[in-house]
Amino acid sequence: MTSDEFKRHGHVLVDWIADYLEHSDRYPVLPRVRPGEIRSALPDRAPEQGEPFERMFADFERVLLPGITHWNHPGFFAYFAITASAPGILADFLSAALNQQAMLWRTSPAATELEEVTLAWLRDLMGLPPDFEGVIYDTASVSTLHALAAAREAHVAHVRARGLAGRGDVPAVCVYCSEHTHSSIDKSVILLGLGQDALRKIPADEKFRMRVDALAHAVADDRAAGRLPIAVVATVGSTSTTSVDPVPAIADICSRERLWLHVDAAYAGVAAIVPESRDTLAGADRADSLVVNPHKWLFTPFDLSVLYCRRMDVLRQAFALVPEYLRTAETGNVRNLMDTGIQLGRRFRALKLWMVLRHFGADGIRHHLREHMRLARTFAEWVDADPDMERLAPVPFSVVCFRLKPHGDDRSEADLEALNQQAMDAANASGEVFLSHTKLSGRFAIRLAVGHLATREQHIRRAFELIKGAARGV
Amino acid sequence: MTSDEFKRHGHVLVDWIADYLEHSDRYPVLPRVRPGEIRSALPDRAPEQGEPFERMFADFERVLLPGITHWNHPGFFAYFAITASAPGILADFLSAALNQQAMLWRTSPAATELEEVTLAWLRDLMGLPPDFEGVIYDTASVSTLHALAAAREAHVAHVRARGLAGRGDVPAVCVYCSEHTHSSIDKSVILLGLGQDALRKIPADEKFRMRVDALAHAVADDRAAGRLPIAVVATVGSTSTTSVDPVPAIADICSRERLWLHVDAAYAGVAAIVPESRDTLAGADRADSLVVNPHKWLFTPFDLSVLYCRRMDVLRQAFALVPEYLRTAETGNVRNLMDTGIQLGRRFRALKLWMVLRHFGADGIRHHLREHMRLARTFAEWVDADPDMERLAPVPFSVVCFRLKPHGDDRSEADLEALNQQAMDAANASGEVFLSHTKLSGRFAIRLAVGHLATREQHIRRAFELIKGAARGV
Repeated sequence: MTSDEFKRHGHVLVDWIADYLEHSDRYPVLPRVRPGEIRSALPDRAPEQGEPFERMFADFERVLLPGITHWNHPGFFAYFAITASAPGILADFLSAALNQQAMLWRTSPAATELEEVTLAWLRDLMGLPPDFEGVIYDTASVSTLHALAAAREAHVAHVRARGLAGRGDVPAVCVYCSEHTHSSIDKSVILLGLGQDALRKIPADEKFRMRVDALAHAVADDRAAGRLPIAVVATVGSTSTTSVDPVPAIADICSRERLWLHVDAAYAGVAAIVPESRDTLAGADRADSLVVNPHKWLFTPFDLSVLYCRRMDVLRQAFALVPEYLRTAETGNVRNLMDTGIQLGRRFRALKLWMVLRHFGADGIRHHLREHMRLARTFAEWVDADPDMERLAPVPFSVVCFRLKPHGDDRSEADLEALNQQAMDAANASGEVFLSHTKLSGRFAIRLAVGHLATREQHIRRAFELIKGAARGV
Repeated sequence: MTSDEFKRHGHVLVDWIADYLEHSDRYPVLPRVRPGEIRSALPDRAPEQGEPFERMFADFERVLLPGITHWNHPGFFAYFAITASAPGILADFLSAALNQQAMLWRTSPAATELEEVTLAWLRDLMGLPPDFEGVIYDTASVSTLHALAAAREAHVAHVRARGLAGRGDVPAVCVYCSEHTHSSIDKSVILLGLGQDALRKIPADEKFRMRVDALAHAVADDRAAGRLPIAVVATVGSTSTTSVDPVPAIADICSRERLWLHVDAAYAGVAAIVPESRDTLAGADRADSLVVNPHKWLFTPFDLSVLYCRRMDVLRQAFALVPEYLRTAETGNVRNLMDTGIQLGRRFRALKLWMVLRHFGADGIRHHLREHMRLARTFAEWVDADPDMERLAPVPFSVVCFRLKPHGDDRSEADLEALNQQAMDAANASGEVFLSHTKLSGRFAIRLAVGHLATREQHIRRAFELIKGAARGV
């Protein structure tokens, strides 16, 4: 592609994206394709001859676009709603062009040092102490995996060299989290060879927070049985309800029991940027590590997850490994980002976070986070005021868990589940909103997650009306 | 940022990138900043008020650009040279804007199904049989990690639930690779809890290929000692020399010993697209899994690694896990990409590979790969014809390992190393080229890796002259 062609196609794309971002509500949030429909509309094999960009883009619009779930839609309320903000998208474009592989300082001094600077900015904004060193990974799953790998390194002698198998000197290892912890913790302990049984899912209280007494008992029981507790994962903003585990009390136990404390603040950690929500991260200053995802609630295009760690030396001890072909004159004198993880190559991700933080400024970020929390509280008030609805969890951040429960109607839990599932499906079928669900103490809960910058009160109002209307229809 | 502002900044960026890609040779390949220089040129904290895009972009040009290592420079010959091709960059821009999280079919039917289609195209181009199912990860490190996790799942009973620690029924586990295997294999076995000692680095022959007799002996020895062999990693295109392990003979052993065979073809696998290099992947059809990185030698912007697996069910058995909040009406009836890995969220990476394959067409890809191999052979001929140079490895693909060895000069290995290190450093200091090194049987080898689409004979000629000239200067 010549330079002029690149400009021509690039300009078309810029205009298309600008229009798309402005009018993403033109599309149904959830696409209406059937499984296999896109696949069958595409050829079975790569073309023999190259094709013009126009033709590819036409196919994108004709075949792929109808199969896009619009995470940019202001009516996207499922899972955790996210925003690819304009400055973040532009930065990611630049990052793709620069094609940096920031494995060594030498292979991208700019990416290496900007990562350090930007993560210090974010750390300070969140009120974490300066002894937390940050590193960027792709996802919270990978951040947490590294945190638990560090915990394993710290607690199991010679695990790097000798592993876990066939050793008489290593008992079964235990990791603790609440029953509301994210599924990525399960995947981490599986991958690390600890086994899913190693994960103790501590019961939660009525507000879906880990019960500290139950944690203490579980640790004591495991020790008594000769097992080796190594880490606790406390969640700040759990996936189902955004509940916050009692981190200070958990930190006390970790300190007493010498356990690695990892805080999963992937979604809610950024709330600490807002002064009145600063206590979101209370106790987290005593953690060994903490994950926060700017690609969740900080307007940064996917993917960018940050692991803050106070014992980064342990991570390096676990993973640093310099083959001859990656040795440089600077080895030992600079930070080589490959030393803190399993992934050798790494994109220039800091660029988009840097541009997002500068574009909005601390003040702008606080404004948007506050507004999202205000919208969620507003929705919660509507639910609370409605005799045919029930709120199922507190609303500390921007997610509301609720269900339809018709007043004076004595139907069974199974019937309530069917009613809510059908109402949610009908609302989602409208194309105007997309909500997802969870289960809380066996009860089917619809979740409304606010997180897109374009979401306004009219959008949550519409979600409320659609659910109510659907209920009348079923 | 308003739509009009996005357009304005986007158009500026498109023009800047077009110009940058056309004139990347205007910059020194290796930046001339000192460690800490970029960091100290940036403020200590995020701005309180938002800033205009122009100011951020000005800072990018003023502070960051001088610290960029130009992977796009036609004189980039270090590690594996790569290309962020124009269609790939545009596709990645679109992908950032769409912000898809293809964890579930429902959260992006287009990303889910395009991944399947595109990976089938690539598989067929490479001549792999259709029973290889593909999945995209970020890096080869993560692809290989999943392959070895599958091998562990297949060989260690109940490893998902019970792990490896504290079990009397699981002996030490062994994985085999050659001494030239990439360092990511070490990191994988560490992470999986097998321990680095579990990795048997089988000696290579004089052409840097795994010695099959030594592999057979090592497996037999481990079995005799009561250890549990689970997998062999065969490399097609090793990092130092691009040597190719004898995959057919290794496959025989794996078949006889019932070991998981993983082929690391991250760099060289795509060579099989060229008919006269088709035998690059001889025997790979018998592998259990194979990794190939389109972000290495297939003109796709970083990151995009593909794992092909004939036993994807084993990967799903290891990792599939559906919490209530991720359950959809389609669960069980569609492919949910989260089921084959540890990362839940995933970018819409297939889009860029799709556009790259269509832009170049099979014919265009063959042309460019052939040209890169021709350039490497040409450089090798210059080395071979020069009485003061020595080639240190065969050149099956696009990498040449060589050193200066002045004719009739009897200096020691240590002196030769110093000479070559200095010559390489001097050449790199020119800003015109960037080469890296390795060690082969204790000898310091300079590597010339061809992989950028803009690289022409004049660039490799310049590298040759600079090394020669530097030698005269030291």
